Amino acid sequence: MGYKETFTLHWTEFWDYETPKVVVVKNRTLGIIYRIIQLLIILYFVIYVFIIQKAYQERESAPESSVITKMKGIGISNSSMGIKIWDVAEYVNPPEGRDVFSITVRTITTPFQRLHTCPESANVPGSKCTSDLDCMAGEMELLGNGRKTGRCVTHHDSLKTCEIQAWCPVENEHSKRDSILTRAQNFTIFIKNSIHFPRFEFTKGNIQKNRHQEYLKKCTFDEETNVYCPIFPLSLIIEKAGQSFDNLSQTGGILGVIINWNCDLDKAASECKPHYSFRRLDAASQDTKASLGYNFRHAKHYMENGTEYRTLIKVFGIRIDIIVHGEAGKFDIVPTIINIAAALTSIGIGSFLCDWILLTFMNKNEVYSAKKFEEVLKERIILAVNEHGASEQELRAIQPENCKHC
Amino acid sequence: MGYKETFTLHWTEFWDYETPKVVVVKNRTLGIIYRIIQLLIILYFVIYVFIIQKAYQERESAPESSVITKMKGIGISNSSMGIKIWDVAEYVNPPEGRDVFSITVRTITTPFQRLHTCPESANVPGSKCTSDLDCMAGEMELLGNGRKTGRCVTHHDSLKTCEIQAWCPVENEHSKRDSILTRAQNFTIFIKNSIHFPRFEFTKGNIQKNRHQEYLKKCTFDEETNVYCPIFPLSLIIEKAGQSFDNLSQTGGILGVIINWNCDLDKAASECKPHYSFRRLDAASQDTKASLGYNFRHAKHYMENGTEYRTLIKVFGIRIDIIVHGEAGKFDIVPTIINIAAALTSIGIGSFLCDWILLTFMNKNEVYSAKKFEEVLKERIILAVNEHGASEQELRAIQPENCKHC
Amino acid sequence: MGYKETFTLHWTEFWDYETPKVVVVKNRTLGIIYRIIQLLIILYFVIYVFIIQKAYQERESAPESSVITKMKGIGISNSSMGIKIWDVAEYVNPPEGRDVFSITVRTITTPFQRLHTCPESANVPGSKCTSDLDCMAGEMELLGNGRKTGRCVTHHDSLKTCEIQAWCPVENEHSKRDSILTRAQNFTIFIKNSIHFPRFEFTKGNIQKNRHQEYLKKCTFDEETNVYCPIFPLSLIIEKAGQSFDNLSQTGGILGVIINWNCDLDKAASECKPHYSFRRLDAASQDTKASLGYNFRHAKHYMENGTEYRTLIKVFGIRIDIIVHGEAGKFDIVPTIINIAAALTSIGIGSFLCDWILLTFMNKNEVYSAKKFEEVLKERIILAVNEHGASEQELRAIQPENCKHC
Repeated sequence: MGYKETFTLHWTEFWDYETPKVVVVKNRTLGIIYRIIQLLIILYFVIYVFIIQKAYQERESAPESSVITKMKGIGISNSSMGIKIWDVAEYVNPPEGRDVFSITVRTITTPFQRLHTCPESANVPGSKCTSDLDCMAGEMELLGNGRKTGRCVTHHDSLKTCEIQAWCPVENEHSKRDSILTRAQNFTIFIKNSIHFPRFEFTKGNIQKNRHQEYLKKCTFDEETNVYCPIFPLSLIIEKAGQSFDNLSQTGGILGVIINWNCDLDKAASECKPHYSFRRLDAASQDTKASLGYNFRHAKHYMENGTEYRTLIKVFGIRIDIIVHGEAGKFDIVPTIINIAAALTSIGIGSFLCDWILLTFMNKNEVYSAKKFEEVLKERIILAVNEHGASEQELRAIQPENCKHC
Repeated sequence: MGYKETFTLHWTEFWDYETPKVVVVKNRTLGIIYRIIQLLIILYFVIYVFIIQKAYQERESAPESSVITKMKGIGISNSSMGIKIWDVAEYVNPPEGRDVFSITVRTITTPFQRLHTCPESANVPGSKCTSDLDCMAGEMELLGNGRKTGRCVTHHDSLKTCEIQAWCPVENEHSKRDSILTRAQNFTIFIKNSIHFPRFEFTKGNIQKNRHQEYLKKCTFDEETNVYCPIFPLSLIIEKAGQSFDNLSQTGGILGVIINWNCDLDKAASECKPHYSFRRLDAASQDTKASLGYNFRHAKHYMENGTEYRTLIKVFGIRIDIIVHGEAGKFDIVPTIINIAAALTSIGIGSFLCDWILLTFMNKNEVYSAKKFEEVLKERIILAVNEHGASEQELRAIQPENCKHC
Repeated sequence: MGYKETFTLHWTEFWDYETPKVVVVKNRTLGIIYRIIQLLIILYFVIYVFIIQKAYQERESAPESSVITKMKGIGISNSSMGIKIWDVAEYVNPPEGRDVFSITVRTITTPFQRLHTCPESANVPGSKCTSDLDCMAGEMELLGNGRKTGRCVTHHDSLKTCEIQAWCPVENEHSKRDSILTRAQNFTIFIKNSIHFPRFEFTKGNIQKNRHQEYLKKCTFDEETNVYCPIFPLSLIIEKAGQSFDNLSQTGGILGVIINWNCDLDKAASECKPHYSFRRLDAASQDTKASLGYNFRHAKHYMENGTEYRTLIKVFGIRIDIIVHGEAGKFDIVPTIINIAAALTSIGIGSFLCDWILLTFMNKNEVYSAKKFEEVLKERIILAVNEHGASEQELRAIQPENCKHC
């Protein structure tokens, strides 16, 4: 054959339809097993993979998120420094209304500090001394407050500590303690959150549209009835996180407000609702009480008669971390086809199993085997031709030796 | 057969090559249908799944991101307190140059507050009174400024409100108002962003390498010509977010600068460019004007003659949230194989359809059916043996009864 | 046939088991090729896809993360303003212990600024002048410090600059410079991080449970021995980021501490460990030195005799960005099935290749071809009926013409 003929032949053959030859086994038992296996696989895919796991959806996690917070409420404290009124500008830190902020619940204030020399706090390891020899001039303890001058001085009564150059007097048991207790639990936190899934170009917020303007001034969050009213009493957050205010107001702590958006965008946008959960974050990783609680020190500086003074404040606070997490899914043809293809391939596993049953356990497995398998052996064909005097073409048609197990 | 023979037999069979027997239907119509279906499926996968959806790529979203911001510009305000110059240290809050910061555009200042007693603001619900009986001593309103002393005092003229213990005087209509108007629109914001995709170990920033040092001092962002110059006039951000400065300077607001990195890492790294978009975030979730705008209160404390004073400032600001979002894709063998497998399986759907046409609609469907299906029935085989006196082995070879529909 | 009979027939057929007819080619060479191809594909899937790539796992990236930081250490500086002790409240900014904070290493302080008029800094472009004509009253330079009054005044010696209305005196070469050098490298940073993968409901922190309470007070991070002790000396972070403290203390800079959680949740939870890496972030995107470094200005305000003063501080700091990144994988049936299906389909590619070898290169390819392919041609069947006088049904059984290439 020339190239042209070969091409013509192949071109003609290209338009033939090829379909696998199928052996039909009229065995009711096997048929039932086969169909039950198929049914189980189909059910599994339809119910679990497609309906429960929503494998037909393209998914996007980590949406763009913007959080705005605003607190309301007035607290009051009564200490040796007198009655103090705490408004939002006093107890919220930082004031800008971001996703992380702390609410001051207890303070240790050391006022009128200035750069000077004074005895080190007795709480600092290595600060106690009996003579100047114990205090190496210029040395600075990592956990201390300043640089040793080299002198050992009286802290109070008979206790002596190294003298240090520092912001003096240092924070010690004489520092003033103050706790906001009254009403701090009733403070409310307004959390405005809007998310955006860029792949699906879907934006939503946790405040409902078309609500009466006064709604947000009076409502309180409730998971059942007021899910679109993101105004949370502090007491609610503490309670849902499984904590007590009394405990937190002593040590401080970090509470996470987790906003979870789990959106099925094949449904209406109104079905995509925020879910709030609350968790204590500073305790998450430990059973021991090491470093439990939350506090930080900050200083307010001021000048008086040309000297710089500062008020050092150790703040025990309830820090609120607003953590936004989300996942959206929407029908997409690519994962759908991948999963349907996986389903179809899996149905083939049913055939595989039934073939094995057919060829191994069935009464007449040799009969079935002979029907399913057709052997090709060069020697046999040649032998057959000699014996019967038939042409090779006829032999092919008759297929005399297709017994596999004989 | 003993175990050894069985094993030898199976071992020999293991090296046989098995291939499905195929029925070739020489029907041009069916062949064309079959090939067209195959072609459509292949085209769909090649064009949509592989070229458009880039299904051959492993994808990573949520890159590590670091944002540095720096503002430039001088504003000026003229109020009852006199002319005030606003430089960066005055209007940017917090000053550290993070991804979220606010630009003060309007302030309501209440200076010289100290802990004292004074009449409550008339704007607070429940503050107005006619006699001491209206003011319960010790009560604190959630939206109020302090704790009621129990007395009803004159606010101004004939208006009486409950006296409170608070930071006095409270913020009211006499507080000083100030607006930076001049030139605030011309402030520029420099945004440095670098991202890192850990899975692909790919790092990129929004500033081009090898640029002349002076470039960043003079350029202005332009999506077409200067995409690597991340210096944004505030007016540009406001305009692109569809807002007006006049409006924002009254109520404040939150503007999102969204930096989107959509990187095809199979291409050159220089093809991975940041895309900037701008959106107002505080209005996203609502049509009503409830809680639109952005403001917060903060206080500056100072001492004078041993008394602690504070200046309370209500800041209306334009808060800028830099939101970084990114997705990178790179060729990976696992998704490629999964998608090719899905494609091959899908091509099988063509066969399924053509088989159905073949067996249902074709003129000679019984002929085709007989060729495609080969029945195995125990009873028929036994019957055949009796009638023809042939051995079972021969029967298997001849396959006399493979008519499916008779 | 009526509808009932048709239905009965199809119902009976539904319970038949259908299995593809297979041609067994007893050719050792082809069998070996076939099995080797299968083996390679299976090995590839088992080793690469399943063991290395863990394709049987459902993956979740971007966990919820909460970071708490706390610094320890005392620094000291000695400048024209005298010796200054820097404690945590002085050098950490902002103090709240978030994931981003800066450590002051150098300051340029301009004290006693008040709103007034003074000569513009000579460093501002366009500030130098020779006469009042060079200074347009009311003009404000973007990079300047205030609004021009229209007068040209002496800056110092013979240098003249435009007079401006600003916070005066402006920051210039006379501002006081101060550097914390002593011991700043030995500051330690305690980083507490807890993550939560919501899909797997898995929470973990970077501090080990059940440790003795004193452990965290004395330990130092070490990747080998103390991976659960997240106390990092600043010097360690600087060194691991490939930087030098001397360099950073001049220009400031931003260092990223990247915590990477790569968790295989099929293993024990204790196997899910944090991995720390360190990188300089402000230099990531550039070779040039443009805008390298990190500094910001902030102001402390105070009142003296009714006049508002401020101290402007330009802070060069080492900003630490704690970036948390994580990915968790857990066995899930959906990706497992998809990948097994892809594997099975891929094994089919082996058949495809062997069929092609069989039909093209093998010695007796026409024999094999005849066995594999069975043609159906309407004309041939009719012809056959005429020649042999056989019934159509018998013909179907005998299948005389199944040679494809003859």
